[in-house]
Amino acid sequence: MAEDKKHASRRKFIQQGSLAGAGLMLTSPAKLFSHINHSKTMNSTIKSKGYAGHDEHGKLTSWSFERRPLGDNDILIEIKYSGICHSDIHTIKGHWGKQQYPQVPGHEIAGIVTAVGKNVRKFKVGDKAGVGCMVNSCMQCPSCQNGEEHHCETTGMVGTYGVPEKSSPSGITQGGYANNMVVTEHFAIKIPDSIDLKYAAPLLCAGITTYSPLMKAKIKKGDKIGVIGIGGLGHIAIKLAVSKGAEVYAFTTSPAKAHDIKGFGAKEVIVVDSSEKLQPYFGQLDYMLSTVPYAYEMSPYISCVKPYGYFTQVGQPINGELTINNFNMIFNRVNFNGSLIGGIPETQEVIDYCAENKIYPQVQVIQASEVNKAWDSVVNKEARYRYVIDATTI
Amino acid sequence: MAEDKKHASRRKFIQQGSLAGAGLMLTSPAKLFSHINHSKTMNSTIKSKGYAGHDEHGKLTSWSFERRPLGDNDILIEIKYSGICHSDIHTIKGHWGKQQYPQVPGHEIAGIVTAVGKNVRKFKVGDKAGVGCMVNSCMQCPSCQNGEEHHCETTGMVGTYGVPEKSSPSGITQGGYANNMVVTEHFAIKIPDSIDLKYAAPLLCAGITTYSPLMKAKIKKGDKIGVIGIGGLGHIAIKLAVSKGAEVYAFTTSPAKAHDIKGFGAKEVIVVDSSEKLQPYFGQLDYMLSTVPYAYEMSPYISCVKPYGYFTQVGQPINGELTINNFNMIFNRVNFNGSLIGGIPETQEVIDYCAENKIYPQVQVIQASEVNKAWDSVVNKEARYRYVIDATTI
Repeated sequence: MAEDKKHASRRKFIQQGSLAGAGLMLTSPAKLFSHINHSKTMNSTIKSKGYAGHDEHGKLTSWSFERRPLGDNDILIEIKYSGICHSDIHTIKGHWGKQQYPQVPGHEIAGIVTAVGKNVRKFKVGDKAGVGCMVNSCMQCPSCQNGEEHHCETTGMVGTYGVPEKSSPSGITQGGYANNMVVTEHFAIKIPDSIDLKYAAPLLCAGITTYSPLMKAKIKKGDKIGVIGIGGLGHIAIKLAVSKGAEVYAFTTSPAKAHDIKGFGAKEVIVVDSSEKLQPYFGQLDYMLSTVPYAYEMSPYISCVKPYGYFTQVGQPINGELTINNFNMIFNRVNFNGSLIGGIPETQEVIDYCAENKIYPQVQVIQASEVNKAWDSVVNKEARYRYVIDATTI
Repeated sequence: MAEDKKHASRRKFIQQGSLAGAGLMLTSPAKLFSHINHSKTMNSTIKSKGYAGHDEHGKLTSWSFERRPLGDNDILIEIKYSGICHSDIHTIKGHWGKQQYPQVPGHEIAGIVTAVGKNVRKFKVGDKAGVGCMVNSCMQCPSCQNGEEHHCETTGMVGTYGVPEKSSPSGITQGGYANNMVVTEHFAIKIPDSIDLKYAAPLLCAGITTYSPLMKAKIKKGDKIGVIGIGGLGHIAIKLAVSKGAEVYAFTTSPAKAHDIKGFGAKEVIVVDSSEKLQPYFGQLDYMLSTVPYAYEMSPYISCVKPYGYFTQVGQPINGELTINNFNMIFNRVNFNGSLIGGIPETQEVIDYCAENKIYPQVQVIQASEVNKAWDSVVNKEARYRYVIDATTI
């Protein structure tokens, strides 16, 4: 019955969504949206071009598709940069469940607003705007009302790509490895003028995913914070924790990253080539955050946390399955939890915080045609540290 | 180096231990220790008879062995009752690691003091006394000083059976499926006169193992508390939580237990024959305690806890390995942890609390010769709810 209710709510929500899209308020300067047809934008679908996966092999190719017409509460974003997240690879390859194709991944999206629906108040044409991991939710339930849209209790959050969505001409949401994006204004993030869009993009997933648990852990000056897996998420986690005055212990399996990691501000870099390397840290850290997106021997890392401290796993392994050893858990007395991105207000907070404090991810800007090579590099742990697609090359 | 230090401390501790045992103060009435030879007790080993495992098949047979001479800080207990814990079976069968045999299991030990060493202050001959899961620790480290001897930071706690121990003539500690026991007074629990020894015995492991996490969770009147696995530990957990005013939701796979469970005071009994039975409880409970001693599909149970609540796993599966699904963890926002028995002060507390509030485990007293049959029943979930060996039949 709970399931029926959920489906009913979802149907209702989708119906409401499809009623929208009547009026569209366009604002100057006109040159910004010269690439779109004005009347088409108001009444019909919007042409889009992106890089899509077509099956579980995960090879992306250029694909032309359509986005929904702009609704009264929507904005149209001309995408400038789109970050590559390991989640994109996991999703398209079906590691986290069966997918519908073609599917355009990408949920670290930064660009310029080129059109706004008539009810839009948060943005005007010409503003910098971003989109992260979700593009909708019910907006009615306590979680949504409380700024935790990612924990929407009725429809669940609607992910930026791959989620069935009637308003989308392709039947599913399509992500940000593309030249444009239509999104309800509530789910778009205002990007401060002072931060370059190429730095803003990765903050919309890698940034908020690490910022949210660090804030929940109430880290403070002098705390010893462990970060495991120093890639796209991990390197931002280090910078964020350092900016809060923490002593950061960075755990990596890549010796070649050690120099960079020191540069991010870590106090110590521990190259973990065997679990013995972890023993000196047992019971030493106030808090630990793991970004490792594959199954790994978690227990000795968890044991690095002080008794009654917390260990948060944000990296999502294939099928989500991780093995925990309860013999360790009863002795180490650590609390294990997971954390999922963050709500829209907190995502706005991390962007504002990073802009103000000049905390920028270390990015490698690539051409769209290099995306498959970049994916391979991410899987092979060769990324340094976040690939960002120059969306103008799509 | 940390490992070296630990070993050094342990050696030192064992050496100190073996220096003890010179003087022994015997107190009347003499009849209580008529079965032991006075001069032998003071200077030489103490004859003991028990039921021991001889290999990983786990069949127990009667075995005569020796305990260390009584030291100045030791008491000698004539065992009256000894509870059967699932841990005994796991240990002897080598599920938790390779064992030394012959080994007498048993860590729910209740009896009468029949002799005391000259420094003993806590007990006198004729007192009721109990021994739980540990018989020693360093007593110097912060955890030991803080009444958390089970988390001793130097030697680790010395388990009641199967742990290498130089002072023990058999080379390892030998447990409570036996007619007597020598133990340092600090590690013996005073059993109030008002509680029958057969009820006191199971409180020394099953009782403290469930009491400690329930107290840490600060359960209070009206809280919704889930208990998973209603056997020896689970049924006591229900009684303890009910005594604190909680609404208890009992999850079992044995429909035949439903009537009993209501009798223990549970508000609801959920017979889990499929994970769908758990869905109505998702996000509903304030706290959950699992006593399940085997690997099981943990994730849907964890999801029954309210966001930011806690789930504690005290049951220890084979090799300790449990699978956790991080997709669930990032959405349910529950903190997972383990809990290991409790320290000596807290073990005293649970015995006193249960005696005062007349919270008694439901026991089935068996003859020693029935022990193997009882073990099979425990494994087959047929125990109702704690077998207790009448140690006078050994």
